[in-house]
Amino acid sequence: MSKNSAVNHSETVQRTTSATRGSLVVHGDMLTIETHERIELTDITDRVIAIVRSAHARGGIVSVWSMHTTLAVFMNESQKALHADIKRLLETMVDREADWLHNDPDHSDCDRSNADAHLRAMILGHSLTLQISGGELVLGQWQRVLAAELDGPRSRTLRLQIIAVGNS
Amino acid sequence: MSKNSAVNHSETVQRTTSATRGSLVVHGDMLTIETHERIELTDITDRVIAIVRSAHARGGIVSVWSMHTTLAVFMNESQKALHADIKRLLETMVDREADWLHNDPDHSDCDRSNADAHLRAMILGHSLTLQISGGELVLGQWQRVLAAELDGPRSRTLRLQIIAVGNS
Amino acid sequence: MSKNSAVNHSETVQRTTSATRGSLVVHGDMLTIETHERIELTDITDRVIAIVRSAHARGGIVSVWSMHTTLAVFMNESQKALHADIKRLLETMVDREADWLHNDPDHSDCDRSNADAHLRAMILGHSLTLQISGGELVLGQWQRVLAAELDGPRSRTLRLQIIAVGNS
Repeated sequence: MSKNSAVNHSETVQRTTSATRGSLVVHGDMLTIETHERIELTDITDRVIAIVRSAHARGGIVSVWSMHTTLAVFMNESQKALHADIKRLLETMVDREADWLHNDPDHSDCDRSNADAHLRAMILGHSLTLQISGGELVLGQWQRVLAAELDGPRSRTLRLQIIAVGNS
Repeated sequence: MSKNSAVNHSETVQRTTSATRGSLVVHGDMLTIETHERIELTDITDRVIAIVRSAHARGGIVSVWSMHTTLAVFMNESQKALHADIKRLLETMVDREADWLHNDPDHSDCDRSNADAHLRAMILGHSLTLQISGGELVLGQWQRVLAAELDGPRSRTLRLQIIAVGNS
Repeated sequence: MSKNSAVNHSETVQRTTSATRGSLVVHGDMLTIETHERIELTDITDRVIAIVRSAHARGGIVSVWSMHTTLAVFMNESQKALHADIKRLLETMVDREADWLHNDPDHSDCDRSNADAHLRAMILGHSLTLQISGGELVLGQWQRVLAAELDGPRSRTLRLQIIAVGNS
């Protein structure tokens, strides 16, 4: 990831497509990421695309679900500068040092003091449901699928579920 | 809900699953909740799990949709302390007493003065699309499905729609 | 859109519906909108309903996906006053004039200075997954599907993907 914005795959999205025949494809898969900072964004687009292609799905949807409360999944441009802006916005919107009850041993058995991470992930959301058309993930020119761990460094898991009509 | 965090069902999520045969299951259902405070979070996870199980779906997705503009649906940990923190964050982010046009009789025919509830629900989101694998709802260790009514007390409705491949 | 809130179609949502037979309908479609202000909300509900009806889907889901990073898609009431409140909230939450790195030529090759639009769209979200029941889009009394371009005026595209069991 450089100063330049990442450009996603250049497949043409089909304008209108219909299928009322063809096999039903239901495919589940996992992907894992490693983060090294407390707040870190990871571009998982290429890995989602690879799983979609391997499933031989022609048209349908794919759900990308974070398996963790402090791991957000959302769509935006993949650019180092913008990712720094996203981190700064989250830190402004949710003050890590406020006296959150989730961080107070009198009210919570959580020893990570990570209320801010729970609240920041909630604002971004924990899942995306994307479209598959012509066997490819549907994304606009600058759109990328991003995962944001907000209480890292951690090893984290996401699950994908494809429901689609197949190629045969 | 105590000081302890709720732990969800302990079924193992299957890492990779595929199905290209089996009957298509499309199942719709409703669930209702009663709230007693103006802002109140309700853990609906067990009820979503029960509906998923009763539909005999093996793999697929389930959409949980709020039927109301001031009822949010989102995922987070179910803990009394964290729920108080979520309420506090929403109250900080969206000032109930600001001079919102939606609360002004010169601009709006709404007599509930609930602009803050509309705006707070919009930040949390009104729906979740979850995954079903091996007949079970896919959730990480601390993940729970939460509904937040922001203009209660109210009696509220959510609709579930399952699309999956069936057991037979 | 007047002082009055828009009321959506009056079809009754079926409480519980199931289908384990019937053809699978997978249908993709595009819709385009034109915006005239920098921040502008467009009610696309009627156009989504028209596409759902034309697909002859009985029960299932429809994904509405924004093809742009600065075009949000979300659900709320369609009322001029509330839309002004949403715009005001976004402008308060994300300061357009802050020194975002995405707007800094030393860190970014984007010449639109639209970091605020990226961040505001991210808070609202870029997609909705809605339900179809009895051939109709499932929406509560005041619920409408809204698109918000945050860096207009622009000509913008959304993609719809239906997965459902068909009428025949």
